[in-house]
Amino acid sequence: MGKALIIGAGGVAGVVVHKCCQNPDVFEEICIASRTVSKCEALKKKLDGGKTKIQTAQVDANNVSELVTLIERFQPDIVINVALPYQDLTIMDACLATKVDYVDTANYEPEDTAKFEYKWQWAYRDRFKEAGITALLGSGFDPGVTGVFSAYAQKHYFDEIHTIDILDANAGDHGYPFATNFNPEINIREVTAKGSYFENGKFIETDPMSIKKVYDFPQIGPKDIYLLHHEEMESLAINIKGIKKIRFWMTFSQNYLTHLQVLQNVGMTSIEPINYEGHQIVPLQFLKAVLPDPASLGPRTKGKTNIGCIFQGVKNGKPVTYYVYNVCDHQECYREVGSQAISYTTGVPAMIGAAMVLTGKWKRPGVFNIEEFDPDPFMDALNRFGLPWHESFVPELID
Amino acid sequence: MGKALIIGAGGVAGVVVHKCCQNPDVFEEICIASRTVSKCEALKKKLDGGKTKIQTAQVDANNVSELVTLIERFQPDIVINVALPYQDLTIMDACLATKVDYVDTANYEPEDTAKFEYKWQWAYRDRFKEAGITALLGSGFDPGVTGVFSAYAQKHYFDEIHTIDILDANAGDHGYPFATNFNPEINIREVTAKGSYFENGKFIETDPMSIKKVYDFPQIGPKDIYLLHHEEMESLAINIKGIKKIRFWMTFSQNYLTHLQVLQNVGMTSIEPINYEGHQIVPLQFLKAVLPDPASLGPRTKGKTNIGCIFQGVKNGKPVTYYVYNVCDHQECYREVGSQAISYTTGVPAMIGAAMVLTGKWKRPGVFNIEEFDPDPFMDALNRFGLPWHESFVPELID
Repeated sequence: MGKALIIGAGGVAGVVVHKCCQNPDVFEEICIASRTVSKCEALKKKLDGGKTKIQTAQVDANNVSELVTLIERFQPDIVINVALPYQDLTIMDACLATKVDYVDTANYEPEDTAKFEYKWQWAYRDRFKEAGITALLGSGFDPGVTGVFSAYAQKHYFDEIHTIDILDANAGDHGYPFATNFNPEINIREVTAKGSYFENGKFIETDPMSIKKVYDFPQIGPKDIYLLHHEEMESLAINIKGIKKIRFWMTFSQNYLTHLQVLQNVGMTSIEPINYEGHQIVPLQFLKAVLPDPASLGPRTKGKTNIGCIFQGVKNGKPVTYYVYNVCDHQECYREVGSQAISYTTGVPAMIGAAMVLTGKWKRPGVFNIEEFDPDPFMDALNRFGLPWHESFVPELID
Repeated sequence: MGKALIIGAGGVAGVVVHKCCQNPDVFEEICIASRTVSKCEALKKKLDGGKTKIQTAQVDANNVSELVTLIERFQPDIVINVALPYQDLTIMDACLATKVDYVDTANYEPEDTAKFEYKWQWAYRDRFKEAGITALLGSGFDPGVTGVFSAYAQKHYFDEIHTIDILDANAGDHGYPFATNFNPEINIREVTAKGSYFENGKFIETDPMSIKKVYDFPQIGPKDIYLLHHEEMESLAINIKGIKKIRFWMTFSQNYLTHLQVLQNVGMTSIEPINYEGHQIVPLQFLKAVLPDPASLGPRTKGKTNIGCIFQGVKNGKPVTYYVYNVCDHQECYREVGSQAISYTTGVPAMIGAAMVLTGKWKRPGVFNIEEFDPDPFMDALNRFGLPWHESFVPELID
């Protein structure tokens, strides 16, 4: 069918590469490109020999002309951006310059403001439309599958959806008293940032971690959930007609929060360098060096994730409740692709989103959020490629 | 009356110097000596001009011949050792060589084993006796005043003491979420070491922090107390005839323990260096650099300490209970001597112990623990020099 350029070589990129190779009729050829070409080579070595042809390249994703040169050389049909969120716009610029379709998994945020908003990427709508190419934004799990779930609920079960509760639970246990599977700075930002939810046409800010509930997740059990801001609420508030309320909930254990709080209290999460014996050392960087290597967590993480959405609304004048969710097992993911569920649940939808565009099912000139397309083929693909979903019409509700 | 050589220039030494200057009839002349002579100079500058003459000297307390040279030059009547516990034996050796009396506040521990025991210092008994000089061990608060309290209880209120509960409460609040007023390594060791108590002729070990009670301290209120090992139990078990049970209790707040636990969990209290960007850095040392400077705690610490002993036994065939304790206010101490109560409660008894020997009241050839002397003049001096005590015959008991 076609050629995909995959930019990035981290945990999520590894999953994308594995999944493209499981779908060789669509992904006949891929190129893995990142700043560190040895990481791309390692992925190629692991997966070479199947039907999908693999090549690698070195590229600085901050540099538009380097990206353009690579795209012109490899001639992909689509670019799958699994690099850093800071790099979304340079990659979109390169796609515009070369007229190649674009998919990513997380929306752009400027490196200095840490404010997740779609406005920067939505500003590319006219240019992508004029260029006749498709940009599919946020094709991970959340954002991503949560938007597909919303479109699916809307299409099949509701005349009008009034409320959406997005629930993201990670019940993984790596056996360490404390460790993070990604940059602790991002964890800390998440926990210390104001929360927000959408209600009656506007977003309402809440104090950080001030709204806490307990939810009894299928296959996981009861967990503490906290209301957070999350990017997909911004597009769902626009794209789900008649929506009155959207909330996003994420699990955090008391143990995790206590560790984070103490590390903040003592100053170990500060990004201001201190002078230590003549060296300028950033406490947070030193903390990262002391904590377990995130790469060591994969093989030892046990347990499951459960991410899904609860919809409430009406169909034919009657109230309807619908809960659709995926449960993903960390160890099964690790056995299959060498990454645990956090990377897996993001990487699989990235491949599927790219396949939707490549196969023409979701090909449409412009810049789109995922819930703007027909969800049915994506929902089928989730079942086929490792993220089967479950549904309930009588779930526990969050008041 | 006489001349004292004070070895050390830390927080406790500062209190000792202040208190010697408040007692110039006994301390006509002092010499403050430490490795860092500028610290000695700073103390001299603060207190010069009173009746007590002050000089300073540089000395390495690990080096016996340096100590001997200094003692021969200054010709003190007594050496007050407020240096590090590792240095007790070199200083005792120098006193033996020069036939000068000796007082310290904490018993010797080898630098590598971290085991507090009197056996090393008790091994000097015959040599001190033959030299005709006095060594007074452990003249701080605990050990120190707790031994004086025991001797006082024994002398005045009991035919036989059956149980002693030593209670050490620090209800000081420095306003930081976490800070330590001394080396966090020592805090950590205290909290992670096995506890022990004396019962029926032997010491019984307990798991670290496994015995916890709540005690309602006079002038402080209810606090969590934990059973710990503490050095004075070793000598009291021998010197208080008929004793059946001795326990030592110290307050720790849940907040403090949580911080210490998290810092241990993440590896920040490790003393094993890690390679960080080419530098060998000890996590604990880096943590100390990130935490508030202990010197900054003095002026901002509010609240009180309460240290004392509850005795139970018999007098004239009838059961007696007796609680004697001192309450010390951090801010009052700071105003008076520029150190808060932790240093104050150790430094005042060090001066008093030295005065007891210098004035001949406690002069006896050999090596002695504090409870082996007549407690009455020491108890009077506590009231005169800033550590007044209170007593109760109906205290709350610890079961």
